Parts: sequence; structure tokens; C-alpha cells
Amino acid sequence: MAKKVNDRDDVLAANEAFYAAFESLDADRMQAVWLKESYITCTHPGWARLIGWGSVMQSWREIFSSTFGMKFVIADEMAHAIGDLGWVTCTEHIESRVYDGVSHATVIATNLFERRQGAWWLVHHHGSPLVRAADPSESQLQ
Amino acid sequence: MAKKVNDRDDVLAANEAFYAAFESLDADRMQAVWLKESYITCTHPGWARLIGWGSVMQSWREIFSSTFGMKFVIADEMAHAIGDLGWVTCTEHIESRVYDGVSHATVIATNLFERRQGAWWLVHHHGSPLVRAADPSESQLQ
Repeated sequence: MAKKVNDRDDVLAANEAFYAAFESLDADRMQAVWLKESYITCTHPGWARLIGWGSVMQSWREIFSSTFGMKFVIADEMAHAIGDLGWVTCTEHIESRVYDGVSHATVIATNLFERRQGAWWLVHHHGSPLVRAADPSESQLQ
Repeated sequence: MAKKVNDRDDVLAANEAFYAAFESLDADRMQAVWLKESYITCTHPGWARLIGWGSVMQSWREIFSSTFGMKFVIADEMAHAIGDLGWVTCTEHIESRVYDGVSHATVIATNLFERRQGAWWLVHHHGSPLVRAADPSESQLQ
């Protein structure tokens, strides 16, 4: 039981490292959190699914190159780990400085991590825009 | 290696059962595909995340009660299983008959399954609206 709690903490720490890399707008740092595999996948809010290291990393470079600054507040984290897979669902409150000013967005995220040699690596990220609040306790619209 | 392939096939079959239940608009059938746990989560397109059996099942009843008919074409399925967790990403092409006519939507989905006593149960569904195609081969906009 203690092991399971530790795994969950480790998955949460990997999730935090992902958002720290996101906020840094540093493609090298973002590369360091993903598993280098052909089956990694990423769906940015409103986008189709991207498959594989090349497509996923290219998307981060595109996002980072069109963004001057980004601040994340991550809320409502739920994490589970079963064996060598862990997942986190959370809400991203994002403030972005882009070409035409500052924008705010709320994104619902699913992040999936795989353990290899004792470390947890991101294998799937799915972010979706929050349009309606399904539950008052979950809304936290900005 | 053979086992891993079988696991993936089983996860794909569980994914098909989920969409068959969705299309049936039958809440009992939908209940039968989910793991009865407090940590199950569901994010419908545009919605916030719902947590737990009660909230998740209530959402299906709401969706089913406001829908007269639904047809799914599921495309681009990718499945993986590691230990007792498996996940599928796919594209849902949906035709819905609702109060004010017929609507078409394309949804990008992440579905996570947990194995218990040899069967795979849905523990997390995340659907998001497709707004822009990130890759021509993935677009398939209707």
C-alpha cells in the first residue's frame, strides 16, 4: 500500500515537471519529460491527435515560438498508478502572452505516464477547452 | 509478446463495447462497461471533469435523455496495454438526432481501461471537440 502511495506521488511529480517544462517554453526541457517512443500521442485543445516523437515535439516548438510567456495554475489534480502506468487528470488555468495581448484559458487535461527504469515519462497528453461547467465544484472558470 | 498483442486486442474490444453502449443510449448498458469505483472520471466535450460513479452515470443519463438517436464511426484507433492498464486514443465521427434536428461532430477521445479479474473496465473517458486539424492525415473533418 505504501508503494502505491509513493507511485502516485511520483506520477504527480512527473506531472508537475511537465507543466514546469510547458511554462518554460523551452523545447529541450519539454523533450526531457516525454518518453522517446513512436507511440506517444498528444492532443492540444481543439487539435487532432498527434502521433510519435517528431510530430509531438514539432507541435511544442510551434506553440513555444508563438508565445512570449505563459503562467500555469494547475488545480484539481487526481492521480493513480497501477503497475508501470500512471495517469493524472487536472485543470489548467493558463495565462498566455501572445502577439496580440494576454489571453486566459481553462483547459481540462489527461496526462498518462509510463515507468521505465524507475522514472515516469509522459506518453500521452490530452487537453480540451472548458466550454461549460459540468459541476459547480469543478467549474472554477476564470 | 503474444500476450501483449492479446491484451491490446482485448482493450480494443472493450473500447468497441463502450461505443456500442454509447450508441444504444441505454444507461444500463453504459453502466456495464465502467468500473464501479469512486475514482472513475469522465470529461465530455467542452465539459469539466466528472468524478465518481454517481456523477459519471448521471451525465450519461442526461445525454441519453436529450438524444433521439446516435451513430458512431470510430476511426484511427491506437491501443496499448501495460500490465493491468490499457488506453485507446481514437476519433469519433458522430451523427446525433436531437430535439432540433441532426448534428454532426468530430471528437478526439482518450479512453483508459483497467483490468480486474481478467476483464477490462473503463475508468476514464475524455472527449474533446476537433476545432483545427493538426495533421492532414488526421483531419477527416465531416
